[in-house]
Amino acid sequence: MIIDLRSDTVTKPTPEMLDAMVSAKVGDDVFKEDETINLLEEKIAKMFGKPQALFFPSGTMANQTAIKLHTNPGDQVICDKYAHIYNYEGGGASFNSGVSCKLIDGNQGMFTAKDVINAINPPEFYHSPLTTLVEVENTTNKGGGACWDFKELEAIKSVCNKHNLGYHLDGARLWNAIVAKNETTKQYGEIFDTISVCLSKGLGCPIGSVLVGDSKFMDRALRIRKILGGGMRQGGFLAAAGLYALDNNISRLIEDHKKAKELGELLQTLTVVKQVEPSETNIVIFELQPDADSNTFIEKLKAHNILIIDMGQGKLRMVTHLDYTNDMHSKVLETLKHLSF
Amino acid sequence: MIIDLRSDTVTKPTPEMLDAMVSAKVGDDVFKEDETINLLEEKIAKMFGKPQALFFPSGTMANQTAIKLHTNPGDQVICDKYAHIYNYEGGGASFNSGVSCKLIDGNQGMFTAKDVINAINPPEFYHSPLTTLVEVENTTNKGGGACWDFKELEAIKSVCNKHNLGYHLDGARLWNAIVAKNETTKQYGEIFDTISVCLSKGLGCPIGSVLVGDSKFMDRALRIRKILGGGMRQGGFLAAAGLYALDNNISRLIEDHKKAKELGELLQTLTVVKQVEPSETNIVIFELQPDADSNTFIEKLKAHNILIIDMGQGKLRMVTHLDYTNDMHSKVLETLKHLSF
Amino acid sequence: MIIDLRSDTVTKPTPEMLDAMVSAKVGDDVFKEDETINLLEEKIAKMFGKPQALFFPSGTMANQTAIKLHTNPGDQVICDKYAHIYNYEGGGASFNSGVSCKLIDGNQGMFTAKDVINAINPPEFYHSPLTTLVEVENTTNKGGGACWDFKELEAIKSVCNKHNLGYHLDGARLWNAIVAKNETTKQYGEIFDTISVCLSKGLGCPIGSVLVGDSKFMDRALRIRKILGGGMRQGGFLAAAGLYALDNNISRLIEDHKKAKELGELLQTLTVVKQVEPSETNIVIFELQPDADSNTFIEKLKAHNILIIDMGQGKLRMVTHLDYTNDMHSKVLETLKHLSF
Amino acid sequence: MIIDLRSDTVTKPTPEMLDAMVSAKVGDDVFKEDETINLLEEKIAKMFGKPQALFFPSGTMANQTAIKLHTNPGDQVICDKYAHIYNYEGGGASFNSGVSCKLIDGNQGMFTAKDVINAINPPEFYHSPLTTLVEVENTTNKGGGACWDFKELEAIKSVCNKHNLGYHLDGARLWNAIVAKNETTKQYGEIFDTISVCLSKGLGCPIGSVLVGDSKFMDRALRIRKILGGGMRQGGFLAAAGLYALDNNISRLIEDHKKAKELGELLQTLTVVKQVEPSETNIVIFELQPDADSNTFIEKLKAHNILIIDMGQGKLRMVTHLDYTNDMHSKVLETLKHLSF
Repeated sequence: MIIDLRSDTVTKPTPEMLDAMVSAKVGDDVFKEDETINLLEEKIAKMFGKPQALFFPSGTMANQTAIKLHTNPGDQVICDKYAHIYNYEGGGASFNSGVSCKLIDGNQGMFTAKDVINAINPPEFYHSPLTTLVEVENTTNKGGGACWDFKELEAIKSVCNKHNLGYHLDGARLWNAIVAKNETTKQYGEIFDTISVCLSKGLGCPIGSVLVGDSKFMDRALRIRKILGGGMRQGGFLAAAGLYALDNNISRLIEDHKKAKELGELLQTLTVVKQVEPSETNIVIFELQPDADSNTFIEKLKAHNILIIDMGQGKLRMVTHLDYTNDMHSKVLETLKHLSF
Repeated sequence: MIIDLRSDTVTKPTPEMLDAMVSAKVGDDVFKEDETINLLEEKIAKMFGKPQALFFPSGTMANQTAIKLHTNPGDQVICDKYAHIYNYEGGGASFNSGVSCKLIDGNQGMFTAKDVINAINPPEFYHSPLTTLVEVENTTNKGGGACWDFKELEAIKSVCNKHNLGYHLDGARLWNAIVAKNETTKQYGEIFDTISVCLSKGLGCPIGSVLVGDSKFMDRALRIRKILGGGMRQGGFLAAAGLYALDNNISRLIEDHKKAKELGELLQTLTVVKQVEPSETNIVIFELQPDADSNTFIEKLKAHNILIIDMGQGKLRMVTHLDYTNDMHSKVLETLKHLSF
Repeated sequence: MIIDLRSDTVTKPTPEMLDAMVSAKVGDDVFKEDETINLLEEKIAKMFGKPQALFFPSGTMANQTAIKLHTNPGDQVICDKYAHIYNYEGGGASFNSGVSCKLIDGNQGMFTAKDVINAINPPEFYHSPLTTLVEVENTTNKGGGACWDFKELEAIKSVCNKHNLGYHLDGARLWNAIVAKNETTKQYGEIFDTISVCLSKGLGCPIGSVLVGDSKFMDRALRIRKILGGGMRQGGFLAAAGLYALDNNISRLIEDHKKAKELGELLQTLTVVKQVEPSETNIVIFELQPDADSNTFIEKLKAHNILIIDMGQGKLRMVTHLDYTNDMHSKVLETLKHLSF
Repeated sequence: MIIDLRSDTVTKPTPEMLDAMVSAKVGDDVFKEDETINLLEEKIAKMFGKPQALFFPSGTMANQTAIKLHTNPGDQVICDKYAHIYNYEGGGASFNSGVSCKLIDGNQGMFTAKDVINAINPPEFYHSPLTTLVEVENTTNKGGGACWDFKELEAIKSVCNKHNLGYHLDGARLWNAIVAKNETTKQYGEIFDTISVCLSKGLGCPIGSVLVGDSKFMDRALRIRKILGGGMRQGGFLAAAGLYALDNNISRLIEDHKKAKELGELLQTLTVVKQVEPSETNIVIFELQPDADSNTFIEKLKAHNILIIDMGQGKLRMVTHLDYTNDMHSKVLETLKHLSF
């Protein structure tokens, strides 16, 4: 038995989800005739109180499309130094949209409204890029699954309004934040212009992300998706998994969070571990002592069939998820307790 | 019963294909660990005698990636005025790769080696874009499913070699050409640098295209796919449909061709039809008499639950496919015969 | 004495123009403090009845900026197959703006309002690029210096209005058209959104083009010029040449036209010449007989110190200009008369 | 009398330089026939021991072209957080080349070879942008005219060689560094792949920058310059100023440095000044006390006809140059001494 804690993207559909998939009514979504896709898009749009939603083959494409919708080439996007769009989308922001990022040196991937104000280039100073978009990520991946204080997100919204900036949320793991903080999708829909959410992480679907937004943005999103090559035919099989997950797999995320918390607490007791970042959701990021080699640590766990991932700069990551069972959890805790290092 | 002749993309998986899908072994393909995806990529690479293949969510993304692999921004791509990459990929060649197209005014979407020579800009004349790629489409979609003479494709290859040009084949319907002309995938693999093939048209899969090519190109293809947002997680469900189709749905294309031929022959006898383009495969493109309104024609067929599509410039298109049964075919032939116009 | 008929770009400043240059009051134009540049921009803006103008180091940059102002990446520009922006700007439209061109097969580089209507992609059909700009060139370079019928330009303007398309004029040689057709700059300013005019062709300046347009476009033009690297410091020396030329070198273009006409008429009498395109301004494009080699023709003239240029596809070009004196003209006419071929 | 310390770009040609300009032999540089341009390019290439050089209308375009030569869209450039290419070229790196910047948090705009190693993304990790270029600026503008330790530049070169990275020097004020540190152009030519130098800052020319590099890069530079719109016609007038300046205005930079040093020393004694950055060349950057308003400070000097510039984040800048005379210097020192604040 392999225990895969590298990411919550490794989950496989349950038999029930597979049943939903195989029973889906499908059509040609390029003609907008796949009724399961249409159903999923309507459902998610409604959840966020937005008029439109669009299904994408990946969260990267949903985010890249959003960046394109909000910017012109040469513009600048304000985001955290840990932002997925800056670090893990292959340089897509500059490739697809011709924009640069103004990185804020935030805290666990989060920053303040004041940070945003300081990061805006004066629009009349034409030597610097024109600032047109603020992007936040909730929960933060590289920040250890941290959740934003919603009040700060509202304060940033005011800054965006005042300076005429777009406001995009990378909600790849927004479900985790909403469950952890007892929030609603609606309140996010109210302040963000566009939001991407992922079906294939905590929710356990094989493939798919959805972008929601106001009509003035989303009317162009279909074109951008086509250009990037995200137009799929009988996508209903994938959308059916999404519909199943929305109904069945959100509230249970609390279990993943509990396990992550227990992992973090145990890790903190190990002498080999220097520091564990505060873990509110399903991600545990920790740093080993300076003299400990992270590759050796990874290999030792691998010898016990436990897979974790290196985040660079001496940090390691564990992610709990739907396929990480109670039995696996017990085994991991035991293994860590007795790990000789 | 709706008879959908708008495109061969409207097919839905058969129960057997669905079985194959639901039984697939999957993994996280972003980590390259989905064994069904890997199997499909290896199988198709081998079919074309190429070292590498990569799965894509759409043919557009496979083509767009190929264009990017062969060109730098500012370069020019030689292709036919009917080319899918110029007409139906949303302007992607210029959006994604910053290149322009030098359009050849060919015959049914096909051109000659001499046409290519005439279309090359002299490389030392730096006022004109640098020509770096020749792209052909087989069969031609907008050209009525016409199949290239392989000898001409070989002659163009010689031109590419001499002028140091890349050579890409948009093989969205290459399976149809191979069946119609009794050719092999290997012979295509031998002359083209990169080839995209589609699983969701004639082969009847719900989603997916594959790009094959030499390693020097394909090593970068994974990066480009990531940037465009084509990295999917448990894609094995889709790949399983592809594997099933490669084993079961290629040789039967001959039936689609036969039906298309019969449709073309009948259409040619109708007084309302001015001209039917020669049909070698599964596409029938025809033009109505100047005084006949194409919308009316489409609507009249729609009243009989028969859907066809407008190709612009007064042309109409019918496409036969896996879900177009013998019964449907009889009904369409009967309807056309008695259509009052 | 070299007689250079390759282009009207080869002219060198007269002593009077040099005097104007050396006496210019200059400043740092990047701070918008070069008063001669400011004067030139105001003068040209006023000539066209537009609120703003901007000085550029080249006509290519002025056109490229205009294309960027009117389009988003992926969009399509309607222009003639002979358009300078498609043929001679290095692929800049796709490099700088990520757009493609829909080429009209016009007459001497000119087309009709009906051609434009046919070239517009239906905006709701998201598979095709979105059409957002119509570009015309007056006079047409590759079209042999032909001048548009102003009524047709007005008819195209109506199409642009109806379909919400931008309308840009590449007026590299607009001065020639205005003189030849007895038109005014104002009437052009009234129908075009943006116009580029060149100071270094017929007007005889060493360097410089100017873009005029409505404020909603030109506010961004300064940014685009900066990004492309067109911000220059003490540009007043170049602007002074422009101011001199506007006062002294426009009406005299009629002499260049007269000489071109005479060259064309003589060429038409030569047996080696198959056809001379109608010449209304300062460009003469002609085709040799199929059996005559154009390189030989060019070399024979070169032996007489007369330089002309190859336009490709068997066509040759002569351009008359400020530095092409009456004496030179007599010599060229004589040489052509007695050219053995 | 206005004393302009905002930038060394505000200098105007001396009568001797104007004489050189007006006497220049010019030609059409787009045909590569301007002999003065050719002379300047050859001279500068030779100074750096490089085979080729190319004249540009601005330093921004020279840098932007270099970035394009070294990268593909999606790639990442390593540079300092103060880099001109990131801060003051309008977002050009992402607009023109589709690349992002990995910013090093250096010291006065300079960093170490170890910083570079840490900033390189692992090439096999395809989620992150591919690192392909290191860019340094010498002297650093935003870093207060600081000069690099040449040994560190050599150490970075070794890193570039090992990791197959391009190495570009933004030498807008390289002349100042060379004079200040008693270095040679040749030693820079030996380690950098491409170098841009400016003629219009310390050297006092009105317009112009030059890019030097190895042939494998520079063969494409002409194309890129054309595409960006940097091809100018009779540029010899501008090149003549450059040739004059290379012969006459380099060694005198030592005077500018002396004045800047004296300004810095005086500023450090003012109670209103919190800190002056070490000044090795012609730039003085200083910070006021937290309670002092920089706008007020600027306005007070302006009342004495002394212009200085705001650098953002509470910093002010003075730049000495060719047009800043001894008399002006005395007046500025006196004014500062007696400035009531």
